[in-house]
Amino acid sequence: MKDERTAAAIDIGGTKTIVGLVDSSGDILAKQQFPTSTQENPQIHIKKCVERLRACLQAADLKEDQISGVGISAPGLVASEDGILLEAPYIGWKNVDFRKLLNNEWPSIKVRVENDVNACALGESLFGCGQDFRHFVWVTVSTGIGGALVINGDLYYGEHQIAGEIGHFIVEWVNGRRCGCGNSGCLEAHASGTAIAHAAMQRVKREGDQSPLARYFRDQSLEITSENTALAARHSVQAAHEIFQLAGESIGKAFSYVANLLNPGAIIVGGGVTQSFDLLEPHITRVVRSAVIGDSNRSIPILKTDLGYEAAFLGAASLVFLKRNIS
Amino acid sequence: MKDERTAAAIDIGGTKTIVGLVDSSGDILAKQQFPTSTQENPQIHIKKCVERLRACLQAADLKEDQISGVGISAPGLVASEDGILLEAPYIGWKNVDFRKLLNNEWPSIKVRVENDVNACALGESLFGCGQDFRHFVWVTVSTGIGGALVINGDLYYGEHQIAGEIGHFIVEWVNGRRCGCGNSGCLEAHASGTAIAHAAMQRVKREGDQSPLARYFRDQSLEITSENTALAARHSVQAAHEIFQLAGESIGKAFSYVANLLNPGAIIVGGGVTQSFDLLEPHITRVVRSAVIGDSNRSIPILKTDLGYEAAFLGAASLVFLKRNIS
Repeated sequence: MKDERTAAAIDIGGTKTIVGLVDSSGDILAKQQFPTSTQENPQIHIKKCVERLRACLQAADLKEDQISGVGISAPGLVASEDGILLEAPYIGWKNVDFRKLLNNEWPSIKVRVENDVNACALGESLFGCGQDFRHFVWVTVSTGIGGALVINGDLYYGEHQIAGEIGHFIVEWVNGRRCGCGNSGCLEAHASGTAIAHAAMQRVKREGDQSPLARYFRDQSLEITSENTALAARHSVQAAHEIFQLAGESIGKAFSYVANLLNPGAIIVGGGVTQSFDLLEPHITRVVRSAVIGDSNRSIPILKTDLGYEAAFLGAASLVFLKRNIS
Repeated sequence: MKDERTAAAIDIGGTKTIVGLVDSSGDILAKQQFPTSTQENPQIHIKKCVERLRACLQAADLKEDQISGVGISAPGLVASEDGILLEAPYIGWKNVDFRKLLNNEWPSIKVRVENDVNACALGESLFGCGQDFRHFVWVTVSTGIGGALVINGDLYYGEHQIAGEIGHFIVEWVNGRRCGCGNSGCLEAHASGTAIAHAAMQRVKREGDQSPLARYFRDQSLEITSENTALAARHSVQAAHEIFQLAGESIGKAFSYVANLLNPGAIIVGGGVTQSFDLLEPHITRVVRSAVIGDSNRSIPILKTDLGYEAAFLGAASLVFLKRNIS
């Protein structure tokens, strides 16, 4: 029997929020986007989300009672059982009871809250290329690097709810770069968007104003960011290629441990840096192949997300369709 | 209600086989041990196992129909669903249909077969310190290094049945030691019993006949093995301590990835080298603490198995008591 439910989804990001309606096939029926105002009270932000959801309902010609629930994705530490955002460093919110705030605006609707990285993994599992695998690992490569594990089609949280910290795998044990977590040599400090931009800055500093990379940024009037370093690589600046090579090799090291330990069906990569996936992927794959055992690990699919920009938004919707009970 | 079933267990090791009867509390009712004759036909070996199991039944005053099933643990690649040992490099057997061979001798008894590392993990889960954790990782440190994952109280196999290859995590990316798998720098090549003995030999070779380690082995008329290197460490030979330190640090690196990725309740270590667990553990713990994030990962229990020498034997018995259906 076809599942004909519809979910309301709220994806709260560090800078933007997406709200909308998604059916159980992952089709987006209506959608709106607006800034996440980190200055304001979370209650006010949730109120705005619900107002915009009501506009979406109208646009899609649906009534409130046709919605099966609301899924919320948010960055940071989430107690998903309780529907509470414990801490969101980028937004500055703490101990926000999303379920309660949302039910203040929309009484008795079911609400499920999940961390954005976990939500992406679930979205991929229900609507993306994760559908093909019983077990897979999701990795967000963005400002930081986060991971989530889907095992037997559901999220695996770990004994104390902090599984998936691939970003803090040490990939350089000697002379590693300092990471925000306090350790040195973490994957996040060597291969995140921030790390790629930092490597480009260091390279410009070391090689001087007349180096090809420095000249590229200057001639094009570009800031030194990971996106612009990717542009430099696409314009055949060798130093930029080398930066992506080193980042890709670091990711490959980390993925080799994931493959050897979990033998997942795939590793699926999302987040902003996947715009440069083609620059990273050959190096990731080469290192993984050289550092795992077993044919299925050597040929493990390392995929770019199907869901792109909307991974977390569709992930928020997928929370409503999961077979787990939501309350 | 108390589970009052009794299992027959067969633990086939590279050199010895243990057969016996185990009740559902993990108490051993009867047990016999004899050599695994790698020269003979597996049918003959299974016949001997069943003869000895019958002697055990007599000794324990039990009848065949009081036994709920037979669990078999064997080294190598096992298709546990089919009850077949696909390949056992140490014994030299290939494609042995244990279920069929056993049912030839003992018709219609339920038979379940598992790889020895997986069996140890299950035994620990049912009868050992694994009982305290929802998720844990088992690691055998012996001639080689193998791992098994218990997730939600049951074995996790991976998408293609080869999860748990912790022994082949690369712990030295530059100038790593060659591993039997063909790669270099694997944990197994740096911290297994074989690797520890190899490191001691290299050290004696490099530092010459008059070095304290060489003199210890000569004076005590000891072969250079990992056990005897542990003895040297216990007799305050500094070089031997350093060898265990390096091995412990390599294990610590590997465990840091396990902790960050899976956030398991514990990592439980078994196998021959755990006789030297006290020489390794401080170095394992120090490295893990320095290389993970989250309080629960920094304080992850790294435990020596409760079940010692009988881990795989009790693991074989636990196959019968698992809630999964055995056929």
